[in-house]
This record gives sequence, structure tokens and C-alpha cells, in this order.
Amino acid sequence: MSAPRTPFYPADAGFAGRVRASFARQKAMAHLGASLAEVEAGRCVIQLQHREEVTQQHGYIHGGVVGAIADSAAGYAAMTLTPADASVLTVSYTLNLMAPAAGDHIEAHGEVVRAGRTLLVTRADVFAYNDGEATLCATLQQTIMALANRPER
Amino acid sequence: MSAPRTPFYPADAGFAGRVRASFARQKAMAHLGASLAEVEAGRCVIQLQHREEVTQQHGYIHGGVVGAIADSAAGYAAMTLTPADASVLTVSYTLNLMAPAAGDHIEAHGEVVRAGRTLLVTRADVFAYNDGEATLCATLQQTIMALANRPER
Amino acid sequence: MSAPRTPFYPADAGFAGRVRASFARQKAMAHLGASLAEVEAGRCVIQLQHREEVTQQHGYIHGGVVGAIADSAAGYAAMTLTPADASVLTVSYTLNLMAPAAGDHIEAHGEVVRAGRTLLVTRADVFAYNDGEATLCATLQQTIMALANRPER
Amino acid sequence: MSAPRTPFYPADAGFAGRVRASFARQKAMAHLGASLAEVEAGRCVIQLQHREEVTQQHGYIHGGVVGAIADSAAGYAAMTLTPADASVLTVSYTLNLMAPAAGDHIEAHGEVVRAGRTLLVTRADVFAYNDGEATLCATLQQTIMALANRPER
Repeated sequence: MSAPRTPFYPADAGFAGRVRASFARQKAMAHLGASLAEVEAGRCVIQLQHREEVTQQHGYIHGGVVGAIADSAAGYAAMTLTPADASVLTVSYTLNLMAPAAGDHIEAHGEVVRAGRTLLVTRADVFAYNDGEATLCATLQQTIMALANRPER
Repeated sequence: MSAPRTPFYPADAGFAGRVRASFARQKAMAHLGASLAEVEAGRCVIQLQHREEVTQQHGYIHGGVVGAIADSAAGYAAMTLTPADASVLTVSYTLNLMAPAAGDHIEAHGEVVRAGRTLLVTRADVFAYNDGEATLCATLQQTIMALANRPER
Repeated sequence: MSAPRTPFYPADAGFAGRVRASFARQKAMAHLGASLAEVEAGRCVIQLQHREEVTQQHGYIHGGVVGAIADSAAGYAAMTLTPADASVLTVSYTLNLMAPAAGDHIEAHGEVVRAGRTLLVTRADVFAYNDGEATLCATLQQTIMALANRPER
Repeated sequence: MSAPRTPFYPADAGFAGRVRASFARQKAMAHLGASLAEVEAGRCVIQLQHREEVTQQHGYIHGGVVGAIADSAAGYAAMTLTPADASVLTVSYTLNLMAPAAGDHIEAHGEVVRAGRTLLVTRADVFAYNDGEATLCATLQQTIMALANRPER
């Protein structure tokens, strides 16, 4: 896009530890086999290895699982920018599936598009990796709500 | 809504067996613990028991898992109306999460809104059940593509 | 859907007058030629006559105009349930276009799916009428935010 | 995003003329006051001056009008990549409104995310300009269908 986006400044310098602790409490992510690969201000990457347990009828990673990973990556990208005592919850997301999630693993790259005080808009692109080559297989647009004074723990 | 919808006529009388066989091949659904509760023309219900393995950080069923179940329920509702030799794939879906998926189990009720030859539009409502009482916790709007001459097996 | 929805109770008995006054202030609706046909608790219908000024290249009503009408119908359905001193704003909407908006007029039937205190989820179905026969041509799923203590006027 | 996207090669060298001719036939765009600012392979920019006729109740450009402009910008970005004898139609779009469309004009910057043979996924960012300063006010994710052997004229 030709016009510049506002840079992001985290409200809490300890955002990465906070995101990693929250991710570790999401049993669904562990059950699917997902791991948190990168956490930066306004950005988060989640990986998922191809395993039979997450496939659909054609042997690719299930579209709903792709959505769950992308939802988490985009939501944690948002959480990097919220205050230490806030929690985040997903209001809605739209997922477009564009190619089979075929390959040895997938990565969901979440990023914040705009960080309001209450609502944050985010995106995630999901890439399928095959022998190091990436194919864009899904993209997500998401709305996140930040709840003030509600630390996760 | 006040205006009537077109009734749906399945193109393949064996649609229920075809949907059940496809669901059985989705290893991700088994891994999450989901089961196919109802299959009718233009309609499909999927159930998911609350289990620790599918929760997020607050102990509710993960929003991405809710999305995966809703995506499948709506997609299989579409598959009830496609010809026997067609496969279906999800083009996109929008999920709104409206209440925590709290309770002993959830049910995603998928239904077809409009069945075109190539594209079908569907919806799913997800209800969380607690001691028999249902709370609407999520709703999904989906686009499905039917691929002719591509039987699943 | 098989499970019941919560009935809606308006917080402000004067909701219909408030919605009609707000609609009258939307110059874009007048410019498109739209009119407010029905306002009930949790529900709103907007009509648009077919006019050359709102068409796309094939002579049907432009999809983006269909979206604008559906967005307003669903948003005003939400506004029927908010307190007298609140304003509403659209956070996001997903529109599926399913058939050409062909006919003498279209109607967008908006309804509330779930009314939270801050966020409301709504839907709209858009019907194209041709000699009294209705065709479902679009459907919308929307997120609305209610801003407390911000009366529109 | 960190992984590269596939570059786009138009199938029809005359794509810009074809897009401009189609835009000129959309009476709704003229009625709203929109103009086609840029057309490149996989990319399209549409401008809309602030005029009273397109405002909502607070005097900003109506969210539904923002959606209509963004829908067109993204759809025409898709049309730059389709064959000369194809038409395009919008299957669905999700619009997030992030800030009031306040200023002297808005621009919707549409771009193709992935161009399949039948389905194309696109995005648009909408910027509000005030004395030359741009604010990102909306973003859209869209699905487009290309219909082969159906030239627009």
C-alpha cells in the first residue's frame, strides 16, 4: 500500500513474556501442536507442523485449524500492544482459504493494522512451507477487543 | 426474516452417507473430539464435548476451535446439496464470537442460505449447553465452492 | 435454527423516533434514494427503488450500494436496542452477494442476533423484488459498537 | 509480512483501458462522485471527494459508501489480471471501519492478494486525507469470481 501506517509502540515493555505465558496456557494450541515462533511489537508468528491429527479428508491441514492458528497469531499480535493489565478477546475474524495447506509446516504471520484503545484491527497471512518454499495459503482479517483492568492472571 | 427462502432439494439421495464418510476421514475433527450429530438436506449439526485439550487460557473452548467446528458444520450442510461426484471446499468464512463457549458441550448448527451451482452461501450458529440450557455463543457466514467431477473418493 | 434466541427488550421506548431521526440525518441514504420502511425492536427494513443512479455496469443495483443499504438496516436494528443517550457505529461487516440485485426495488431486512452492552451482532438479508416476487440476493453479518453517553444530538 | 508474494502478470495487455471503460459504465460510482485515480497490474486506486451527499449523521463519509468505494477498488484490482473476455463479480467482502472518514477526500487502494483462475482474493485500504495527511480509516478483504468467456461488452 502506498500510504504509510502508524508505527506501533507497546504500552508494556514486558509484552513478549506476557504473550508467551498466555500462549502456554492455551491447551488447544498445544493439542494442535502449535508453537510460538516470534513475538515483536505489533507482530506474532505461530508455527504448526503437519501431523495426521490436524488434517482434513484430503490429507492437508484442516481449514478450520488454519483459521485457529491464524486467529491466535493475529490476536497475540494485538496483545503485544495492550497494557499489562488488559486481556484481549476475538470479536470476529474473516478467513480466506486460497490454497491447500500442503507441506511440512505452516506459519501464521499476524500483524496489527490499527490499534485503538478498545478495538484493534489485525491481519494474518498463513504460509505453507514445502522444502523451504513458502506458498500463501490463507489470509485473515480480525477485530480484537481489549478489556482494561482485567489481567490474564 | 419475513420473506421466504427457497426450499432445498438434494441432488444426491445418498447425501447423508456421503457426508458421514467424509467427516470420518477428517482426522482433525476426531482429534478435537467432535462428532456429527445430525445430517439433513441443507443442514448439519456437529457437537463438541468440553475437554481440557480444546480450551484457551480462561478454560473455555478456544475461539479458533469454535470456528473450526462451525466451518465444518456449515460446509457439510452445503455438501448435502451437491452432486455425488462433487467435492466442496471452503472459500471463506466470517466468525463472530459473542459469548464464552462455556458449558458441558457446544453444538454448531450449519444451514445453507443459498445453493448456487458453483458457490453456496451458508451459516452456522454455535450454542454452548450448560445443564440443557443453550446460549448462542458464535455465528458464522461462509462461502463454499463445489468442484464438479471430483468425488471425494 | 433449532435452539431459541433471547427475545429483545428495547432500553428506550422512543427507539423508533430516534432511529427515524438519525436516518433522516444520513444524507447518503437520501442521495441513494433509500427509505426507512419498518422499525421494530431488534429489527429494521430499508427499501431502495431501482434507479439508474445506483447501478453497476450490467444495469443491476451496485453491490457496494447493496452493502451500504444492508449495513444501515442492520445498524439501525441494533440502534433500536441501545439506550437513548448512546450512539452506534459499525465496527465491521461481511457481505455475501448471491444473485444480481435485479428488479423494481430491493429491501434490506436487518435484525439483531445478540445484543451485548458494548457490542451487538446483527444480520441483514437483502431481497430483490420483481413484480412482487422476492429473491434473496445478499446477506450480511455485522458487528456494531454502542457508545454510551453519546446521544446523536 | 516476511514471506514474498507471487508477482502478478496481467493476461491482457489492454487491462487498463478495459478497467476504465467498465468503471465509466458504473453509474453508481459517478452518482457518488468517485473517480478512478490509478490502474496498474494487480492494483487500483479510487478517489472520492467529501460531499454532503455521501455523509452519515455526523457529517463524515458514510461507512457503507466507504465500503462501496473499497469494494470497487479491490474488484478492479482483480480485473486487471483477468483475461480480456472475462467479467468479474464480487462474491463477498469484509469491511472493518477503523476511524471516521473525515477529511477533504478518501482514497481506496485495492490490491490483489492471490489470483486464482476462478477466484481472486483482494484487499483494499481506505485512507482519509486532510490537508495532505493520510489516516487509515478502513480495510477490506474480498473474494472475486472471474467468469470466463463473458466479456463485459
